[in-house]
Amino acid sequence: MHQRDTRTGLEVIDRKACLELLAQEELGRLGLIEGGAPLVLPINYALDGDQVVFRTAPGTKLDLAHGHPACFEIDDYDRTARTGWSVVVRGHLQEITPVEKARWERVQDLPDPWAEGPKAHVLAVVPESITGRRVSEKR
Amino acid sequence: MHQRDTRTGLEVIDRKACLELLAQEELGRLGLIEGGAPLVLPINYALDGDQVVFRTAPGTKLDLAHGHPACFEIDDYDRTARTGWSVVVRGHLQEITPVEKARWERVQDLPDPWAEGPKAHVLAVVPESITGRRVSEKR
Repeated sequence: MHQRDTRTGLEVIDRKACLELLAQEELGRLGLIEGGAPLVLPINYALDGDQVVFRTAPGTKLDLAHGHPACFEIDDYDRTARTGWSVVVRGHLQEITPVEKARWERVQDLPDPWAEGPKAHVLAVVPESITGRRVSEKR
Repeated sequence: MHQRDTRTGLEVIDRKACLELLAQEELGRLGLIEGGAPLVLPINYALDGDQVVFRTAPGTKLDLAHGHPACFEIDDYDRTARTGWSVVVRGHLQEITPVEKARWERVQDLPDPWAEGPKAHVLAVVPESITGRRVSEKR
């Protein structure tokens, strides 16, 4: 028996399953506020514990670090079957210090084809909530 | 000869090609500001001219309508080839009035499995900018 969202009726994906989905994927979308408006950007990421970690060169995303509220989303959708799932992480950005970076070797090696150039900085989305919804086949 | 983003080096997708990609897809992510923090949600949509149109029941997205700044993103990514593209629409939300809704028959028929229940309202993301980036195979 799956739990359902009382408002939408969608199947709820529990936190553990959300983290499993986050560990499987490598492309997601980062939501930020820039100039008072939302901005959604694709990023390649890795999961470390419950943190979504990604590399970035100096620019928009980095300038917004240090506690800036952030949202991270992954999803998958089958157009034919009209089934799918999504996981949404809400939290804030945190820059990983050079000392901490040493243990992020895997992340350092993560290619980020969406932004060229040296990726000197590693940011994390530190989660305050992790929620997931699944669209079932039979509706 | 493709234009390239001077900051990231990525290939730029021009507005016309962005609109073609937007017309092909049916799932995207809507970025909003809710409670001072960004929120990214998957939505099924249709393209009408240059507007991203989607159905919604009363709730979060609808409460934010009437000029609320919004961002809409679609992407595709090949994990093996590490190639992909993304299109980002920045603008604001506008609720479609009942009178205008008459001509949105196609949209009205669009299933939105992400949110159950009657979808009495139709919202549009009215674009202020439409930009696209492509990650080429050879980098």
